[in-house]
Amino acid sequence: MITSVEVISRVRDRQPLTEEELRFFVTGIGNGEVETHQAAAWLMAVRLNGLSRQETVWLTQAMIDSGEVVDLSSLDGITVDKHSTGGVGDTTTLILAPLVAAAGGKVAKMSGRGLGHTGGTLDKMEAAGLSVDLSSEQFLRQVSEIGVAVISQTAKLVPADGVLYSLRDVTATIDSVPLIASSVMSKKLACGAQAILLDVKYGDGAFMGDLESARELAKLMVEIGHSLGRRTKAALTSMEQPLGSSIGNALEFKEACEVLNGTSTDTPLARVSQRLAAQLLLLSDLAETSEEADRRVKELLESGAGAKKLEQLIAAQGGDPAVVAHPEKLPQAPIRHEVKLKREGYLKSLSALRLGLAALKLGAGRRRKSDPIDPAVGLTLRRRVGDKINSQDVFAVVHASKEEDVALAVTEIEQAVTLSENPVEASPEIADWVEHTG
Amino acid sequence: MITSVEVISRVRDRQPLTEEELRFFVTGIGNGEVETHQAAAWLMAVRLNGLSRQETVWLTQAMIDSGEVVDLSSLDGITVDKHSTGGVGDTTTLILAPLVAAAGGKVAKMSGRGLGHTGGTLDKMEAAGLSVDLSSEQFLRQVSEIGVAVISQTAKLVPADGVLYSLRDVTATIDSVPLIASSVMSKKLACGAQAILLDVKYGDGAFMGDLESARELAKLMVEIGHSLGRRTKAALTSMEQPLGSSIGNALEFKEACEVLNGTSTDTPLARVSQRLAAQLLLLSDLAETSEEADRRVKELLESGAGAKKLEQLIAAQGGDPAVVAHPEKLPQAPIRHEVKLKREGYLKSLSALRLGLAALKLGAGRRRKSDPIDPAVGLTLRRRVGDKINSQDVFAVVHASKEEDVALAVTEIEQAVTLSENPVEASPEIADWVEHTG
Repeated sequence: MITSVEVISRVRDRQPLTEEELRFFVTGIGNGEVETHQAAAWLMAVRLNGLSRQETVWLTQAMIDSGEVVDLSSLDGITVDKHSTGGVGDTTTLILAPLVAAAGGKVAKMSGRGLGHTGGTLDKMEAAGLSVDLSSEQFLRQVSEIGVAVISQTAKLVPADGVLYSLRDVTATIDSVPLIASSVMSKKLACGAQAILLDVKYGDGAFMGDLESARELAKLMVEIGHSLGRRTKAALTSMEQPLGSSIGNALEFKEACEVLNGTSTDTPLARVSQRLAAQLLLLSDLAETSEEADRRVKELLESGAGAKKLEQLIAAQGGDPAVVAHPEKLPQAPIRHEVKLKREGYLKSLSALRLGLAALKLGAGRRRKSDPIDPAVGLTLRRRVGDKINSQDVFAVVHASKEEDVALAVTEIEQAVTLSENPVEASPEIADWVEHTG
Repeated sequence: MITSVEVISRVRDRQPLTEEELRFFVTGIGNGEVETHQAAAWLMAVRLNGLSRQETVWLTQAMIDSGEVVDLSSLDGITVDKHSTGGVGDTTTLILAPLVAAAGGKVAKMSGRGLGHTGGTLDKMEAAGLSVDLSSEQFLRQVSEIGVAVISQTAKLVPADGVLYSLRDVTATIDSVPLIASSVMSKKLACGAQAILLDVKYGDGAFMGDLESARELAKLMVEIGHSLGRRTKAALTSMEQPLGSSIGNALEFKEACEVLNGTSTDTPLARVSQRLAAQLLLLSDLAETSEEADRRVKELLESGAGAKKLEQLIAAQGGDPAVVAHPEKLPQAPIRHEVKLKREGYLKSLSALRLGLAALKLGAGRRRKSDPIDPAVGLTLRRRVGDKINSQDVFAVVHASKEEDVALAVTEIEQAVTLSENPVEASPEIADWVEHTG
């Protein structure tokens, strides 16, 4: 008979765990056979001693089996999903999803809500008036009819992750590669898509501080996906600065509309979205070569097919599709304050974490799950890493609801900036790709 | 402001903790500010990353401060206490305590109950009809009047240890040197004696598997005692075989009587008790040199002063002092079964753990705190490590209350034995001493 103490001792002593032992432990957390404090001690042992790739795969499967899974088998073609490990000012999902659907893909995306300095995809959609709480039947019908739906993940998926995540949060065991990988992948796999594209962030404010640890995490997640029968690929992207120029829910939705409606082209957000969309076409057999995939994505943008698909998505989920062509119809904050830096030099980095805090202080994110979000507030950036900064130029614009929030946000923005006397080159937008290697 | 997550992160990252942080954490465990699962994660981090000597001293002091402490300041002279890290068939306390009191020492001993294959000192005393639940006033008066009292430790001492110990038990964090040292020493120091003699066991079934880890634990405990103002010394003794020839509560009490009344001389138990008693005389300034201490202990045994003191102790705590001269008056089991080994050779080791299990199966110990103990049952050993074993000789005697228990005990005894074809030399009775080094 397996006991909790034995399973803890194994990890403590760097001895391998069997699939059965991991299943016993995860099931036990759910049914109370494993006490919360035993789970906590186990988490710390994993944080310090790690788990093997095989153990992490078994852990992920056991976590998936702790709850319901979404059955997408009624949909034709290869279903696709995309997940980012948490960016600031990163609204690629709202651009990718319509593009892939416009190409004939089946984008069945469920997002978690979680906490964050700024809102997640669901918050951006709600800021634009969309409903994200669809029933499973509505969800499947919508994907089948228009090729795309983005909804809120139910609590019935991977309940074990809920317990483990809340424990990790208070036991200093968040930053563990196998625990992050099993948490992310169990939720993605439970959502049922056959192909998964991961965007793994590195740098200041990301789970992973540097490119190499991000690569390690990405490799592990790709191998988990592969081992459990999904096509999985990951992009490694820097958090040296936000990907887009907007941070805040309606502001980011607006930026996504601008990429799709052709107002905004050749920006980092537009370029990265195109490259990720092309990867999703390849993963879902909608293109055979990279060149073909890139060309198709370009066509979908230029023909307006992507914009049209976003309009369909908005209409299907109860919003006003007119915002795609007229993003100024989205909620706007009453106060706009232009921020100039008092310093000069070349912009070396723009802490995504600090900018996220600025947005949080304006009301764009949540500290507690019950906190309300202000859809209109946030900030727009006028400069990117590498740019020459002049003290007379407008560096950023703060969009606020209350006068007293402006100064708080400005302070954070100023602290987010690092300048250099010498010219600076920005990191590549996508540092590398990780895929399964036989 | 200190937070629990910070304190856990420090140990996780091998960063030093301050006295204030350790105090915050231990106090928090008591008042609920630190959650049980946070304490569990912290314990695993300590188990894997350790604590410095200074941190362990601070932890011990914070644990002591979590409850009441015994005030022995009203007693004249230097108060002494003795603690063993858990032996089987080790009844030195019942021999040492009267000897030191007979020499004019003040032995104010409080014992914990705990779980164990065989009973502890308190169980042996209760098996002989003594009461161990005295009030503080009775305790102090008895030590003042006859120089010795051995009673049960109240739950009001070091409540933090109770919480941490029960957590360690279920989180695979028992075998951590700083956690063992702070647990043992916090309880010893809270009991108030000025001089403390530790008996640290090593080998099969002990906390510490080998001599060097036992030495590490002993050094840490001695330094904790020294840092917190107590005279502390430790003996390192092997658990390659039980020290005495009896295992079981009344049987061990009988063996202690036999050493003091002169029936049993020059046995390992008698020799080790004399050496430990001599150390206690030195620690409490009742002798100036080792030679003087040894001579005084010998005199106390030969003159019968030790036996007389045990009679006083028994009488003071409500037992029948006649058992010292007539140990056959102690409870005796109805069944005596002689065990012969089916094998021949030289006795190489006698697993104290297995023999303890044999005694447990006869009813001499507890599996759960509420289990009753049978005072009369146990076993007596006729052979020691190094002896030649003959299949016709009686190797041990099982003392049982129920016929069906005999076979269970015999199986354990047989498994306890390791024989060698070649002659074997037993380990020294005391492998080494550890004391504070400037």
